[in-house]
Amino acid sequence: MTPSLNPYDSMTPVTQAAYRARAAANTLAPLPRAQKDDVLAAIADALEVRTAEIIEANAKDIDRAREAGTSEAIIDRLTLTAERVRAIASDVRDVIALPDPVGEVVRGSTLPNGIDLRQVRVPLGVVGIIYEARPNVTVDAAALCLKSGNAVLLRGSSSAYESNTALVRVLRDAVGGAGLPADAIQLVPGESRESVTELMRARGLVDVLIPRGGASLIKNVVENSIVPVIETGTGNCHVYVDKDTDLDMAVDILVNSKAQRPSVCNSAETLLVHADVADAFVPRALDALADAGVTVHADARILAYAERSKATVVEATPDDWETEYLSYDIAAAVVDDLDAAVEHIRLWSSGHTEAIVTTSQQAARRFTQLVDSTTVAVNASTRFTDGGQFGFGAEIGISTQKLHARGPMGLPELTSTKYIVTGDGHTR
Amino acid sequence: MTPSLNPYDSMTPVTQAAYRARAAANTLAPLPRAQKDDVLAAIADALEVRTAEIIEANAKDIDRAREAGTSEAIIDRLTLTAERVRAIASDVRDVIALPDPVGEVVRGSTLPNGIDLRQVRVPLGVVGIIYEARPNVTVDAAALCLKSGNAVLLRGSSSAYESNTALVRVLRDAVGGAGLPADAIQLVPGESRESVTELMRARGLVDVLIPRGGASLIKNVVENSIVPVIETGTGNCHVYVDKDTDLDMAVDILVNSKAQRPSVCNSAETLLVHADVADAFVPRALDALADAGVTVHADARILAYAERSKATVVEATPDDWETEYLSYDIAAAVVDDLDAAVEHIRLWSSGHTEAIVTTSQQAARRFTQLVDSTTVAVNASTRFTDGGQFGFGAEIGISTQKLHARGPMGLPELTSTKYIVTGDGHTR
Repeated sequence: MTPSLNPYDSMTPVTQAAYRARAAANTLAPLPRAQKDDVLAAIADALEVRTAEIIEANAKDIDRAREAGTSEAIIDRLTLTAERVRAIASDVRDVIALPDPVGEVVRGSTLPNGIDLRQVRVPLGVVGIIYEARPNVTVDAAALCLKSGNAVLLRGSSSAYESNTALVRVLRDAVGGAGLPADAIQLVPGESRESVTELMRARGLVDVLIPRGGASLIKNVVENSIVPVIETGTGNCHVYVDKDTDLDMAVDILVNSKAQRPSVCNSAETLLVHADVADAFVPRALDALADAGVTVHADARILAYAERSKATVVEATPDDWETEYLSYDIAAAVVDDLDAAVEHIRLWSSGHTEAIVTTSQQAARRFTQLVDSTTVAVNASTRFTDGGQFGFGAEIGISTQKLHARGPMGLPELTSTKYIVTGDGHTR
Repeated sequence: MTPSLNPYDSMTPVTQAAYRARAAANTLAPLPRAQKDDVLAAIADALEVRTAEIIEANAKDIDRAREAGTSEAIIDRLTLTAERVRAIASDVRDVIALPDPVGEVVRGSTLPNGIDLRQVRVPLGVVGIIYEARPNVTVDAAALCLKSGNAVLLRGSSSAYESNTALVRVLRDAVGGAGLPADAIQLVPGESRESVTELMRARGLVDVLIPRGGASLIKNVVENSIVPVIETGTGNCHVYVDKDTDLDMAVDILVNSKAQRPSVCNSAETLLVHADVADAFVPRALDALADAGVTVHADARILAYAERSKATVVEATPDDWETEYLSYDIAAAVVDDLDAAVEHIRLWSSGHTEAIVTTSQQAARRFTQLVDSTTVAVNASTRFTDGGQFGFGAEIGISTQKLHARGPMGLPELTSTKYIVTGDGHTR
């Protein structure tokens, strides 16, 4: 009487892929770490052995991008070289070294009635990743999902379609070669937007969608998916320089937060300065930002210092307070006190990372208590909000939502839990 | 230059309520436990002192329900008596005794560069609860949210509108009397469906929605909310009787799982029996179910035993395998082996709770590894999946999804985390 699965015939290709992923996930879930690590090693080896095939496919994407007049910056992000493929393989080997989160007992106790209760980490099941441009994400995401016992549905950018197809072929061959279901790693069929829509409707088949990319991609998924989503990425990060502060440290942290790598989500986008320290700090800050090539979008009180500075300073509009520039630009304002800085952050921040530079213990404590972002930094650059920096070994993205995972997501964030209740015939 | 909040004038009443809740949440977040416990004590006292006012309001709901021809069972669930109000107050006092999850350091380490990293529990912020009928949920949910530092938006059933209004008035007076923002606890304005829709659109203002109630309510919220949702409740739970089993224990667990309280989500809805033990077990099971007043919806192999039994046995249709009866009914089937039981569960279960009754260590291990539900019970009734039974002290619901929280949700599940990064001027 056991009923059979719904017939595949009536399904769209994306739904079929999701069904196959679910079946593969059932096989992956109970696998011990050693078996998963062996497959990861096979994947790393295969990437190196089949580099030529991958680069050949990548060349087609690059040709197409050039024909379409794509900027060289984006073409550079799309490009795979032998060296880059080796680096991707090396990242896979790093995942082998990470502990397996599956099976970890999160909490356990014996209940008063003698029942043993254990909360144990289990894979999420089927993870869908929707991402843009860079083909290395294809391999990173697949490796992290495999290690955490999840099947993955990869929906990359159409601009990297040939590269992703070649990479996924190599990955699937390695998985299949180890006697495991190749459908644990699948590229979502179709280059159209329709396939994203179908993924977002696949509740019950896909356990979570993780969009990685620009704001419009993330907004689309967050607003339209009925599959649970982990929102990643937007970082309108603030550096607040307190009244009591080490000015050298404040300049260093500001410049590092803004300019060490402006294109990433943990770079700073707004500077807030306590009014009492403005005279001492703002001129130095403007000069240091100028040396780093940063344009300052200033409120009236910062503008007052602009004439005596070599910095490029323009008047801020309200839009500047909520802009994630991802460029050599920063908004800047003077605030009356720490609480005003907190108010500004509550109103405009995307809740990613905010830093305070202060010598005051009370100020550090109040700022960390009142600011509710994934990461609050005291006397440290905003640039530390990163799975690698946090020692997680690898990250699947940085969650800016409060449910399930917040901040850099490593392997444990790709798991759920279940309770095991063991008795001797216990009834209520 | 600090900008002001958007003017309230242009907002709907629900959006205004959500803005006020967010402001209240900012005040609640850093409160120490003692202050929150004091408010809970004041709430419990006020419920007892103002019982007459609450019962008077409740009487209006009951009159209206009677006029509308509501069933006595539902009217009973709606009814508040002095004794029931005392019980609700007592539940609030139980929450006082629970540890405060806020501030708990979930993990912490010193990074190789000397930065101190701490992951600390923080409130979710604004929690929306959408629920049906029983007015005690109003107080339970408010108490749990308050203890975990969250503001709560309560959207109860229109059938309990007068009762909920009176209860929330009492709660808000107690909160305000303690010098805290009464807007930490709000009844969502309006009795119409429109207010639910507005809650579901309030992304950025409301951090999570928790629907508690029937399947159609939950489906509506899950499919239409752009605010993150924690899905609760549906329980199509299974009891699997293995080949190697203690027959007395199996009968006890089956009957307890099904009939101890059939109307709740952790009661069993399907019995699966290993073929090798069917001759020995099924006749006894049918008689015991008959004694408990349970109707059996049987597959062909169970039906074969019906004639020799005093049980009421009807032929199962495919619908029976996915039905959550919540009544004195159970579906029943014979399966060829443990793996066939697992397949049946994968196909039809809602992923709430599944139990195995076995004397075999290997069978117990395989079943707990392969079955992926919030709770897997070995030689124990499905009825133990419950926050109270698990020792959580109270529960806000039972999550049947994999993200954020799975299984009974206590106070820690009403929190998120943030990272605190502390350095001495660290830059990258």
